[in-house]
Amino acid sequence: MAARLSSIRCSWLSRHLSRSSSQSVFNSPCIISYNSLRNMSAIKSSKCLELDNINPCIKTMEYAVRGPLVIRAVAIEKELEQGVKKPFNEVIRANIGDCHAMGQVPITFIRQVLGLCVYEKLFDDPTIPSDAKERARDILSGCKGSSLGSYSDSAGIEIIRHHCAEYIQRRDGIPSDWQNIILSSGASGSIKAILALLRCPVNGKRPGVMVPIPQYPLYSATIAEFDMEQVGYYLDESKNWGLDIKELQRSVDEARKISAVRAIVVINPGNPTGQVLSRENIEEIIKFAYKENLFIFADEVYQDNIYAAGSKFYSFKKVLTEMGEPYSKMDMASFMSCSKGYMGECGIRGGYAEVINMCPEVKAALLKSISAQLCPTTIGQACIDVVVNPPKPGEPSYELFMKEKNGVLQSLKERAEMVAKTFNSFEGFSCNPVQGAMYAFPQFKLPQKAIDAAKKAGQTPDSFYAFQLLENTGICIVPGSGFGQRPGTYHFRTTILPQPEKLKEMLALFQEFHVKFLAQYK
Amino acid sequence: MAARLSSIRCSWLSRHLSRSSSQSVFNSPCIISYNSLRNMSAIKSSKCLELDNINPCIKTMEYAVRGPLVIRAVAIEKELEQGVKKPFNEVIRANIGDCHAMGQVPITFIRQVLGLCVYEKLFDDPTIPSDAKERARDILSGCKGSSLGSYSDSAGIEIIRHHCAEYIQRRDGIPSDWQNIILSSGASGSIKAILALLRCPVNGKRPGVMVPIPQYPLYSATIAEFDMEQVGYYLDESKNWGLDIKELQRSVDEARKISAVRAIVVINPGNPTGQVLSRENIEEIIKFAYKENLFIFADEVYQDNIYAAGSKFYSFKKVLTEMGEPYSKMDMASFMSCSKGYMGECGIRGGYAEVINMCPEVKAALLKSISAQLCPTTIGQACIDVVVNPPKPGEPSYELFMKEKNGVLQSLKERAEMVAKTFNSFEGFSCNPVQGAMYAFPQFKLPQKAIDAAKKAGQTPDSFYAFQLLENTGICIVPGSGFGQRPGTYHFRTTILPQPEKLKEMLALFQEFHVKFLAQYK
Repeated sequence: MAARLSSIRCSWLSRHLSRSSSQSVFNSPCIISYNSLRNMSAIKSSKCLELDNINPCIKTMEYAVRGPLVIRAVAIEKELEQGVKKPFNEVIRANIGDCHAMGQVPITFIRQVLGLCVYEKLFDDPTIPSDAKERARDILSGCKGSSLGSYSDSAGIEIIRHHCAEYIQRRDGIPSDWQNIILSSGASGSIKAILALLRCPVNGKRPGVMVPIPQYPLYSATIAEFDMEQVGYYLDESKNWGLDIKELQRSVDEARKISAVRAIVVINPGNPTGQVLSRENIEEIIKFAYKENLFIFADEVYQDNIYAAGSKFYSFKKVLTEMGEPYSKMDMASFMSCSKGYMGECGIRGGYAEVINMCPEVKAALLKSISAQLCPTTIGQACIDVVVNPPKPGEPSYELFMKEKNGVLQSLKERAEMVAKTFNSFEGFSCNPVQGAMYAFPQFKLPQKAIDAAKKAGQTPDSFYAFQLLENTGICIVPGSGFGQRPGTYHFRTTILPQPEKLKEMLALFQEFHVKFLAQYK
Repeated sequence: MAARLSSIRCSWLSRHLSRSSSQSVFNSPCIISYNSLRNMSAIKSSKCLELDNINPCIKTMEYAVRGPLVIRAVAIEKELEQGVKKPFNEVIRANIGDCHAMGQVPITFIRQVLGLCVYEKLFDDPTIPSDAKERARDILSGCKGSSLGSYSDSAGIEIIRHHCAEYIQRRDGIPSDWQNIILSSGASGSIKAILALLRCPVNGKRPGVMVPIPQYPLYSATIAEFDMEQVGYYLDESKNWGLDIKELQRSVDEARKISAVRAIVVINPGNPTGQVLSRENIEEIIKFAYKENLFIFADEVYQDNIYAAGSKFYSFKKVLTEMGEPYSKMDMASFMSCSKGYMGECGIRGGYAEVINMCPEVKAALLKSISAQLCPTTIGQACIDVVVNPPKPGEPSYELFMKEKNGVLQSLKERAEMVAKTFNSFEGFSCNPVQGAMYAFPQFKLPQKAIDAAKKAGQTPDSFYAFQLLENTGICIVPGSGFGQRPGTYHFRTTILPQPEKLKEMLALFQEFHVKFLAQYK
């Protein structure tokens, strides 16, 4: 009740706050204009922050993966708990790449090492293998006072940065300098830190960042929050979501009329689109970025998630280096996370960025900028350490580790195939093969009556469909409009993460819903 | 060598990039102007990011606690490892409130619960008491898939938010709503998130935030990064670093000529100044903030660290609520962390904010803004859970827990007294009592010859002194200029965290250095 009263007052006040839009600078939405409340004695308020006087960029930003549909899904879960009757018994959260939440079991070796790091008495436990103890001992030796409870350097624990560099070197066959490794809380932490370097108008123009459409909403949300210009380039659905250079060119040329485009984000393997880029396509993108002087954000967090026959992961760094000069001198950044792959340790928040060929002064500024956040969580650092320094052949944990890792990846591969195949059997659906990552992004046609009904409900047609699906089946997906899609087309993202039996069940439920939905709106 | 060449090229390029300062808006330093490199074919560079074309706010920001002195301290540590001879054998890091790094031992109960959460086989360990297992079971029951590896809600795991609210209610005797609790990575995460709400010019003026001088550099760094105006108010050193309302008024009146002052930061107990505010002083501050329509950031992370006889911690929420209307309706935020207190789990990154009386739409915007960071690390959340839900009388872990907690706090109290007393015995030093927190901030006089030598070396006198101390003794402190101080006065911050024997040794070394320093520059 108190909250409601307060809410009413806020809106009332909002209406009474005078606003002026005369002061538009850099065509930025992030300027507010209001009369200081303290001068308006008639409506003296106890509140300093009102919707009309907070940062408009934050009001603008959206993060669809956790948007209104998810909020409704949480509410439905509560209703189910309270015994409200629904046509289903549980919400299936296919909206977010949250592996453990969908029943994936943690990798034993990772948890052994983390357990040792936080609870040192485990070193006395004879059931924990010696290689796990060695890993934990190495990590703790890199911590001040030998405790994960001490701050690390802002860029992370040195020995872990070394291990990351060695991992990259093994992966690419190309040297990696540990001083170019910046550990962070998930990949998101370092992505935001590097985007922040670009956060300033240039010659009166907002800085622009090219992002794929559809894209992972971390980028759109951060770009909006940072008052930057999101410069979308469409992925080519007809070419399995590949990047078409003509489209990149169109996008940058149009955008440069109003903004200072300075960077391009490429997500490979793709989120939400599940494609794995060919080496040739990566070469073209690098040439384009060089020509247009764009800093490359290579989001490579799904590098372990490659399923399709003939698909292979090539890192941007490897391709760019092997292309030789001038490309091999380009500055760029690559991102990795322990939230995806076969480990799926999302909540632990571990990740790293490798910054390549970065101007030393810029790197110094970057390192300084992250220092006020003190350090990424040490347990996240420990987790990424295990990922980049897993058991080696001959070590006691090797066999179990490989069995678990391959088990997860094989099962994901089967689910990737199952999802694409099943969706392609639905009326009006077409779904590209899920070559990698953890998502399918099918396109679906909607009858005009459904589109009209959506309009009437004040929703986009894909949101309308997704809400109907949720209310009728408990399946929570993310409408394509949260990621971006070509106008007039409708998509959604679903993860492939429910365990196989659950996934079959989900797809059957989905099909049943779809048939009914079409019947209703035909 | 490659790095050096690259560095030279960057500087060279920088000189060739045309800059214009004509485009000054909101007297903001965060505007850049440069000619796109791609149009300057003569000096075509492979680098997109150069010092001259990155976000100037990041170049401006400083974070003294991890500044040049600390960088030098790290280098000295490396030299010592490599066998370079120094007049000392180790660096004593008195620069940062990093308890475990200085030998403080983790609290057993905390680590038992964290161990159970990450390594579930520990539930079978009969040496771990049942109350630790209960806590861990509760936490895991709040995690999707019962794993810390799943994402939590962006505001944190619900059951932990409930526990935080119950803790606050026990502490203050005033209701607390769990939906007002936002878990974050340390306190820093939520402080930055709420500051970001204010990040936008108002009627052409930069938003201003009042911070104490001296202050904790998280604030100055974030305010600079966010292109906001830092509005300093001096703490009254003669009144044990209390807040003087006349000084607050002077500060806001002056600042409002050029900026839109919207918030005030109060750190209680004080960092770096160690004071504990009286209830009367807090009441005055609240009245002032109400009158000036300022959002209060109550940084209360040291609430467990109260040492001086007669000092008591009062939360801003408690005082404001008990003052009645209109004050009890003010919106404000209070911050807590698991990095300080008796636990000192800095690297784990756990913390929370309680937002009080916040306009619901503003709270919704805040929650949305943190959603793109996915979630704070779940292990940090688990850690703050133990802090707010410790063993109760009668539970098996209660005695050991209280013994360890009181042991740490008692020892800190003794060290607080030792540090202030010892510094007050130094020639030219005066040090207020360390009533709380983990720091002393003594003032010291420097002979003119030392001030001249500093000038010659291009350093502030306090930095010069701190560098000399570091090079001669290995003791690493932070010069007062990193926190702010009245012009013409010199201070430094030292932690009281070295273990008692080490602290005695450090103070003896310090005294010896100081005597020599005075002799040299007299």
